[in-house]
Order: sequence, then structure tokens, then C-alpha cells
Amino acid sequence: MSRVYNFSAGPSALPEAVLKKAQQEMLDWQGTGMSVMEMSHRGKHFMSIAETLLADLRELMAIPDNYKIALLQGGATAQFSLIPQNILGDKSKAAYINTGAWSKKAIKEAGAFCDVQLAASAEDSKFTTIPERSSWALDADCGYLHYTANETIHGVEFFDIPEVDMPLVSDMSSNILSRPVDVSRFGLIYAGTQKNMGPAGVTIVIVRDDLLGKAKNSVPSVFNYQQQIDNDSMLNTPATYNWYLVGLVLQWLKELGGLAEMEQRNIRKAEKLYQTIDASALYSNPVDKAYRSRMNVPFILADSQLDAAFLEAAAANGLSTLKGHRSVGGMRASIYNAMPEAGVDALIDFMTEFERTH
Amino acid sequence: MSRVYNFSAGPSALPEAVLKKAQQEMLDWQGTGMSVMEMSHRGKHFMSIAETLLADLRELMAIPDNYKIALLQGGATAQFSLIPQNILGDKSKAAYINTGAWSKKAIKEAGAFCDVQLAASAEDSKFTTIPERSSWALDADCGYLHYTANETIHGVEFFDIPEVDMPLVSDMSSNILSRPVDVSRFGLIYAGTQKNMGPAGVTIVIVRDDLLGKAKNSVPSVFNYQQQIDNDSMLNTPATYNWYLVGLVLQWLKELGGLAEMEQRNIRKAEKLYQTIDASALYSNPVDKAYRSRMNVPFILADSQLDAAFLEAAAANGLSTLKGHRSVGGMRASIYNAMPEAGVDALIDFMTEFERTH
Repeated sequence: MSRVYNFSAGPSALPEAVLKKAQQEMLDWQGTGMSVMEMSHRGKHFMSIAETLLADLRELMAIPDNYKIALLQGGATAQFSLIPQNILGDKSKAAYINTGAWSKKAIKEAGAFCDVQLAASAEDSKFTTIPERSSWALDADCGYLHYTANETIHGVEFFDIPEVDMPLVSDMSSNILSRPVDVSRFGLIYAGTQKNMGPAGVTIVIVRDDLLGKAKNSVPSVFNYQQQIDNDSMLNTPATYNWYLVGLVLQWLKELGGLAEMEQRNIRKAEKLYQTIDASALYSNPVDKAYRSRMNVPFILADSQLDAAFLEAAAANGLSTLKGHRSVGGMRASIYNAMPEAGVDALIDFMTEFERTH
Repeated sequence: MSRVYNFSAGPSALPEAVLKKAQQEMLDWQGTGMSVMEMSHRGKHFMSIAETLLADLRELMAIPDNYKIALLQGGATAQFSLIPQNILGDKSKAAYINTGAWSKKAIKEAGAFCDVQLAASAEDSKFTTIPERSSWALDADCGYLHYTANETIHGVEFFDIPEVDMPLVSDMSSNILSRPVDVSRFGLIYAGTQKNMGPAGVTIVIVRDDLLGKAKNSVPSVFNYQQQIDNDSMLNTPATYNWYLVGLVLQWLKELGGLAEMEQRNIRKAEKLYQTIDASALYSNPVDKAYRSRMNVPFILADSQLDAAFLEAAAANGLSTLKGHRSVGGMRASIYNAMPEAGVDALIDFMTEFERTH
């Protein structure tokens, strides 16, 4: 079969150019006679791959010098527990904004390690909007404010960075690298790599240096940010091949023109898909237009009995993994950086034709 | 360059057949039109890969039904902290045998979460032997006894399973799958995958079911064995591509005849290399012959000033990553399952020729 357009929410499509490069180098990386996954993580070849990755990430995101980068394991889900243990120091409270399924998970896991103050919640709206900043109840004793920059299931995204008087912590797993972000506004940014950065198996933590050195003694060393940063994120053997693939994705982004270019592409892709949905009598999306995600576009069919036929016909047209999350039903098109505009065009053509014939 | 013989201690050489299969399937796994690393972990294709992996591991190691398997992240190093938190229950003490650098790390990390009782140590011998079972001081209040089945730095390996009256816990990161092992003798076996199982980024935990359900409340859910096992090790997004590669290694092992066949090959490889060392005036290995590792063969040159010339000439002959760990110096040849006998023969020929000419 030829390659499909894969709308999976994550793990998700990777740039074909990255896969081809990895394929070509699989048995012999740059004349070393070995695959990257066979290299000692302490050897000069892999160390050069790691250094390039970190330099490219710093350049692409314009990460200031007073921010350190750790490459960890366990996904964003592990960070839900590890963030309060690492950065709260002598504070016991942390504030959270609840904007969807991922916020809820972050709140639940953090609750075992700190006193969670719910500053705002969009649950009453069924997660179709983001509560206005003026409505947030922020307790000044909180050690940080946490928000989920993009909710993959509900399709809700923050486009402005909230103004708050405490360190801002953001889960950017599903929209990191999709546009430029002012990192200096944050205390900590974290992201699993399996949406916009590469395959699953790496978690990036970007942390302002004044938040380091506060970890509880009960934090195992491989999950202690300061200790991992002091050891080049190699206190345990890193997921070397995954780092390599993340590095290839970063190089691909640089070659395409960086995050400003990605933002333009992502705006174009999302706008045309939402326009198709809004102009249709069959498809609809319930999210407040100001907060509609550019990465994950959920939509329902007016008649859910057509869902199975829609998915079957889409698959037959090379449009894969469009089924929505079971908690919201319907469809979801995840259109991360690696989804070419041609893929969105193909989806729109298919949706239009499906509506015409059903 | 053509492929080298790679003696890295880990991440280490993978079977060339596995790399070629992964290369071939990189952009399109079995007609799905996508790479395995692009698949949803909840989709039917990846679920079939995961199920096959677990079934093949169970078959190869003859894992009894009352043992569960978790596939985690964070390496064996994370497990050093997580094991006492997960399985000690209401016990506060655990017994450890110190046979080298990895035992020491396990002891240090566990010490933050339990009262470590040092039952025996080989440190006085500079880790060149394993203390006799009759000399071990075992406190019956301990919740388990931990030992490191193979020490990669010192080249010391257990070939018998110790008889003890408490659950036996073993770090088999560097010799798992190298020979048949009676799993029913253990409470828990764990291993990072980056030596004998695949690339770095997965940690296998095989645990007897009566040790489950004892985790402390402070254990984050992604590190809670029971919770991960109840969720097919998918509480967080698994390192899907790494799982796939581990699966390919297991299939390769099955095709070659399983662990009994690997044991014969590993005995042949190790014996001829140690014979070369013992018959030489230039090379030596200090380890008690009864406990010499079949996986990691450290040796020193009588004149350490020849080390650089040895490494340079070896590399020129396609023999890579032979430098010993800095803590013991000299050389180390790691000859895991994926090292073909022809690679050991090439190393022996080179060592003989180097001795003749120096």
C-alpha cells in the first residue's frame, strides 16, 4: 500500500523525509558501520547527536540561557506527579486550570503530591471554551499555575499566554513547535514527543534555573530534574534512537523555515478545515471559535449512524485514524506539523463528497 | 563503511536481520501505509504487535501464568527506586548482594525507600568473585533479596539461582535471554532492553502476582506495577517503536531456536575468548573462573601503554567499542546474543596478531 494520510492524535504521523532519512541510516549512521540504536550513549557519535538536538531545540524555540533542558522518560503522565515534587520546594499548594481530559489527569496525579487549588474550570461548558482570565481564582501561596496548552480530546487550545504572578507551568505535549512561543514567560514547559516532535518515548522538560534544586528527597534520581540536567539526561541510559529521531524532526523544521513558517502552515490547515465544518449541514464542532485547536479538530456528524460509513469510506480513500475519542464520539482530525496541507485538502475533498452523497 | 563488529556494553549491537526488517518496514508496516512509530498505541495494528511481543517473551522464557509482565520506562535505574516502593508492602527491610557497580547503584537508590541490609559483598575482592551462598547474612524480616545477575563493568555473572526463603529479585538487564532461566524461582525479574532485547527505552518487569497490589500511595500511577499491568502497560503512551523492535528481537530468537540454542552459542563464544586471554602473556582477566561473565569479557593488557594502539588497530580492523569502563580500565568485549560467533573469531584473530606484533 502507498502511504496514507494519518490523522492519529498520537503517536502520530511523522514527516516522510524524516522516516526516509532514518531508513537510509538504519544500518550505518554516517559511515560508523552501526545503527544509532547500537551506539554507546557515552560515545562521541551519540554525544554529537545529543548536542545537536539540544542546540536545535534551543534555536527553534529561542530558549533563553537561564532555562535548562532535560530529556526524560515516562511521558507527560509521569511529569504530572514529578512537577510538584521537583519544583514546589517549601510550598504545598499549586494552582490548576481545568480545560479538558488532560488537565483533569494532571490535576488527579498532582493531587497525591500537593494541595491542588482549582483556579478555573471549563467543565460546565463540556470543555468547549476556556474560562476568561478575569474569572480565575489564584491563591498567592501557590508555587505555580499549571495549564494544558492544547487539549487533544476536546480540541481546545490556548493562544495567549496567561498573565500571572507565579511560575507558569504548561503541558505543551500536543502543540509544542507548532508556533513560536515566548519561553521567558514560563517557569516550566513540558511535552511528550509523540505528537509534534518524534516517536513516543521521550519527554522534554524546559525549566527556568531558579526552579531547580528544590526536589524532595523522595524523588528518585532519574526523575530529579537537577540531577538529570547535571548528567546530560544520562543518569539512566537514554532512549537513544528516540533522541535521534527527535533530532531529525528538529532538523526538518529548521530546513522548512522554523516555527514562524510552521505557524503559517498550521493556521492555513486549521482554518480551511474549520471553514468546511462550519459551512456544512452534516458536520459540526462545538468549540468556542476563539479557542479552537489548530492541532486537533474534533467534529461530529449530524447523524451518528453515518459514523461507520464515514470511517470506512475515509479509510478506502487513504485517510486513516479519524475516529474521535470515545469520551466525545464522532471524528477527530489531528493535523500536527507533519500533516501536509495536501492531507488536509484530501480530507476536505472527501468530507465534501461524503456530505453530497449522504 | 561496511558494518563493524560492535562490542559496546549497551546500547549494543542488534541482529542485522532485525535492523534490515525494521528498515524495510520503516515507511509502511505490513501494508498499513504507516510506520509503526506513527500508529496509535490503542489501534488494532499496534495492539497486535504488543500482544505478540508479550506472548513471545512468555514462550521464550517459559514464564508461568502467575507471573505478570509490565513494560515500563526509566531503565533499570528507575526500578532501583521503584521495586522497594512497589513490593515491600508493610515490610521495611530488603536484603542486597553487592557484586559490582550495578549492585552498588541498586543499593544506593533503594536506600532512600527502605532499610537496606547488605547480606554479602564482593567489594574486598575488587569484585572479582561472588561470595559463597553459605556466607550470606540474611535477615528473615527482609521483604526480598536483590542480586545483579550479571555485572557489565566487572564481568561477573551468577550461573546458579540462589536458594533463599524470601522473594528473589534480580536485575537481569545484561544477561536476560542469554540462556534458559527458571522464572518460577523468582519474585521479580527486571531488565532494561538495551543489551539483549532491543534498543534503549523499555524496561521489562516480570513479577509474581502475590507481590502486586502492595505499592505505597506515593508511587505515581505510571510507576505502579499493578496499575500498569491492569492497563496493558499503557497508562502513559508507551515507547511504541521500541516495543516493536523488542518484538523483532524476540522473533529472531525464536527463529534461531530459542534460549537453549542461545546458551550453547554464548558458551562457545565466551569460552574461546577466555581461552585466548588465559593462554596469552599480554592479556589477562582477574575474575574467578566460576563466575566469569558470558556477556561482558573485561581484560587488561600487561602494558597499559599499548591500550591506545590496541584500540586504534582494532577499529581499523572493524572491531569497535572495545575500551573498558574507566573504573576498571583496559578493554571490554561485550558479546551479547546479537554478537555473531564470527565477530568473536575476528576479535580473537586480531588479539593474537596484536600480541605477536607487540
